[in-house]
Amino acid sequence: MSGLERLLAAEPVVVTAGVEVLAGALESQSVEVHRTNWSPPAHGTAGALAKLASAPAVREANQIAMARLLAARPHLVDVVPAGRVVPGLTERTFLHAGPPLTWAEASGPMRGALIGAMLYEGLAATPEEAISNLAAGDIDLAPCHHHQSAGPMAGVISPSMPVLVVEDADSGGVAYSTLNEGLGKVLRYGAYAPEVIERLRWMDRVLGPVFGDAVRRSGPVDLRSLIAQALQMGDDGHNRNRAGTSLLLRTIGAALVESDVASVSDRAAVYSFVDSNDHFMLNLVMAAGKLTVDAASGVEHSSLVTVMARNGTEFGIRLSGTGDRWFTAPAPIVDGLFLGSFTAADASPDIGDSAITETIGLGGFAMAASPAIVGFVGGTATGAVQRTLAMYEITMAEHPSYQIPILEFRGTPTGIDAILVTRTGVRPQINTGVAGKEPGVGMVGAGLVEAPMACFVQAVNTLAGGVAVA
Amino acid sequence: MSGLERLLAAEPVVVTAGVEVLAGALESQSVEVHRTNWSPPAHGTAGALAKLASAPAVREANQIAMARLLAARPHLVDVVPAGRVVPGLTERTFLHAGPPLTWAEASGPMRGALIGAMLYEGLAATPEEAISNLAAGDIDLAPCHHHQSAGPMAGVISPSMPVLVVEDADSGGVAYSTLNEGLGKVLRYGAYAPEVIERLRWMDRVLGPVFGDAVRRSGPVDLRSLIAQALQMGDDGHNRNRAGTSLLLRTIGAALVESDVASVSDRAAVYSFVDSNDHFMLNLVMAAGKLTVDAASGVEHSSLVTVMARNGTEFGIRLSGTGDRWFTAPAPIVDGLFLGSFTAADASPDIGDSAITETIGLGGFAMAASPAIVGFVGGTATGAVQRTLAMYEITMAEHPSYQIPILEFRGTPTGIDAILVTRTGVRPQINTGVAGKEPGVGMVGAGLVEAPMACFVQAVNTLAGGVAVA
Repeated sequence: MSGLERLLAAEPVVVTAGVEVLAGALESQSVEVHRTNWSPPAHGTAGALAKLASAPAVREANQIAMARLLAARPHLVDVVPAGRVVPGLTERTFLHAGPPLTWAEASGPMRGALIGAMLYEGLAATPEEAISNLAAGDIDLAPCHHHQSAGPMAGVISPSMPVLVVEDADSGGVAYSTLNEGLGKVLRYGAYAPEVIERLRWMDRVLGPVFGDAVRRSGPVDLRSLIAQALQMGDDGHNRNRAGTSLLLRTIGAALVESDVASVSDRAAVYSFVDSNDHFMLNLVMAAGKLTVDAASGVEHSSLVTVMARNGTEFGIRLSGTGDRWFTAPAPIVDGLFLGSFTAADASPDIGDSAITETIGLGGFAMAASPAIVGFVGGTATGAVQRTLAMYEITMAEHPSYQIPILEFRGTPTGIDAILVTRTGVRPQINTGVAGKEPGVGMVGAGLVEAPMACFVQAVNTLAGGVAVA
Repeated sequence: MSGLERLLAAEPVVVTAGVEVLAGALESQSVEVHRTNWSPPAHGTAGALAKLASAPAVREANQIAMARLLAARPHLVDVVPAGRVVPGLTERTFLHAGPPLTWAEASGPMRGALIGAMLYEGLAATPEEAISNLAAGDIDLAPCHHHQSAGPMAGVISPSMPVLVVEDADSGGVAYSTLNEGLGKVLRYGAYAPEVIERLRWMDRVLGPVFGDAVRRSGPVDLRSLIAQALQMGDDGHNRNRAGTSLLLRTIGAALVESDVASVSDRAAVYSFVDSNDHFMLNLVMAAGKLTVDAASGVEHSSLVTVMARNGTEFGIRLSGTGDRWFTAPAPIVDGLFLGSFTAADASPDIGDSAITETIGLGGFAMAASPAIVGFVGGTATGAVQRTLAMYEITMAEHPSYQIPILEFRGTPTGIDAILVTRTGVRPQINTGVAGKEPGVGMVGAGLVEAPMACFVQAVNTLAGGVAVA
């Protein structure tokens, strides 16, 4: 019997891909059908994908970029005023989340945070004066991502703010992020009321120096290890950081007891401030993330996504292989749970550099480790597991340190491949806080969002343009 | 058509229970078979079960007992030397884990811990002298459970040891447990080397007073709330208490910064001691458990299991409806992961009052909340979920506070019903540390064990003897 004869001699078992009507027709004739999860590539990428698929240079570049991403070892070493350490941060520069934008383009929460930073820095006495100065271009605005930094939500970093200093002793990499202010009415959500400014001043006067002293006494804090442990304790590293915050306090707590840089009451207040805010760890994860993706950046031909970031107006990505170029699309609206009487109508479009957590295999990619997060961002525990499973379709590796106990310690899906995103139509999952769309409102909710496909389409077409045909 | 005719007119769908050969025979004739999970009642319980099943008094008693168990609100309020607060603990009394036993009956680790307590209390200068005095009956031995207390592993409580004081302001209940020493060579695992005794002395001189002061400054610590939060962070409350220990440190940390009862270095040492031991919270859970089961005890006719405890020689249980009586069987051997070069041959039979965690819906009953525990006790994450699911078969309620995120926040299976255990043949699952069988060795591993059915058979027969036929 020939191979074809043998095949036809038995009952057929059919694997189907794509259009459901074909699978259904077979099934109605009692044929055993196995459906594969398949959808057509994103519109406008067929040529680019064909070219990239046959290019050995892309595969080799991705291996190099992923190896660098997975080799990063970020350690928290210090807390210092931003103006003293962040490269290029002059007295008249404010950093912000996401791709570049102007005051005219800025969303409500971004404007609110910039106004608050003007008041905090003493560059304006009133919100009106701040608006006038910002509109006149008195302040240079630049993305955090252009200055080795990452900021949650509006992500505004001004020179007086204390920043976390995260270093990798092996690679020499350095990255920065602000200290987390807590939830509710806070600058990063666009609030700038007097209590918001007062808290920021307490942060640079007390929190920064005292926390920084405790970090120096405790020695470098291995963030990769701390994040890995937190994932075993139900964190996702983005919107659930309760375990990470707890483990951080455990790490520096004895130093806070022993420190002599401040009064007992100031040290107790610092302990209580961190204790009162389960998101405190987020900014450490983000600085660790920035160091990690910077290590993987600039590998020619690599389709690895090194940046996903939103400024409240646009969503932007960068690839390792396309240099400093941003690929942007309008920032999407978040599907979320809203606080109190707020509704989706109060929500600003997606904002913040915190999607850097997803970029390194955390957040929406690690939700299977964090079923309790659904109380904050919505959905079911089963859905959280499904979201993680879907992300294995578009990533290059399973993270060797970030393991998910309920998936029998499988590593989180890590290293988004723009080629896989466009080829499968599966968009990166992000969980996120939601800011009010009016300046001054603050946080209105939290939820889930998917990165816009248009960014990835532009990115793979640009990448393909630089690749020689094999 | 009659009901019977209608039934026979269609293709049969058969539900089978018990013997597999019948289900298999039907299936081989292409009959649709749904197997139920059924096994015959435990041998020797048929009469008792028939009597108890038809007794409304049992059902009513169980409702009362369960309501009391679920209403308990244990709070940690203080830390005080045992001799000052534990009722009936004279200078010549040592408490121990499990049902009553004599020196002659005591296992290796129990003997080791009793020897260590003699040295620690200054009642003997050498191990040999301690053994001679203990064998001569110089010390009264009594179960912790007879003195409002619970102790892990050997569970020895002697008068100088500081104990956690746990109260329920509503019910007036009080319970006690020692402070956890850490892992490895520690008294509760039967070690009594000089460093073990030295650590115990530091605990009564420094840890007890400083930790107690921090507890009093922080106000009563709501243990039910703390345990509930820890379950959302991957604890099971028995052998994984990393989150609970972290949250406890967060709760008392600011007070440790502010305290003035001891030197800065002693306070920092207390912080570091708790931080270095992820099992520190276990003893708090156990004291909370003792308060909880005591509240549910003494309800005539109730088949609720209020005690499961092991002394290294025997496994004993008590029911709410059978007063102070113990129902015992030989302590089983634990199926576990062994440390270093230790093997099962080095293991003592099951020991400790810590199965009180399982008695209140934690530990082996809550393993679905704690997939990462399998790294400590063995097995797979999927197996951990299955163990929890099996326990719903033998429990009366789903705990309203202790919820399991991955099961969509279903409450843990809580309140073991001895009737259900004997009727289903499903034995309570316990996860546990394993002590070396020779005195002085200490911990050799951790693993899983099931409560012996013989205890439950005696218990239901005794309970049935006190119930009038309906």
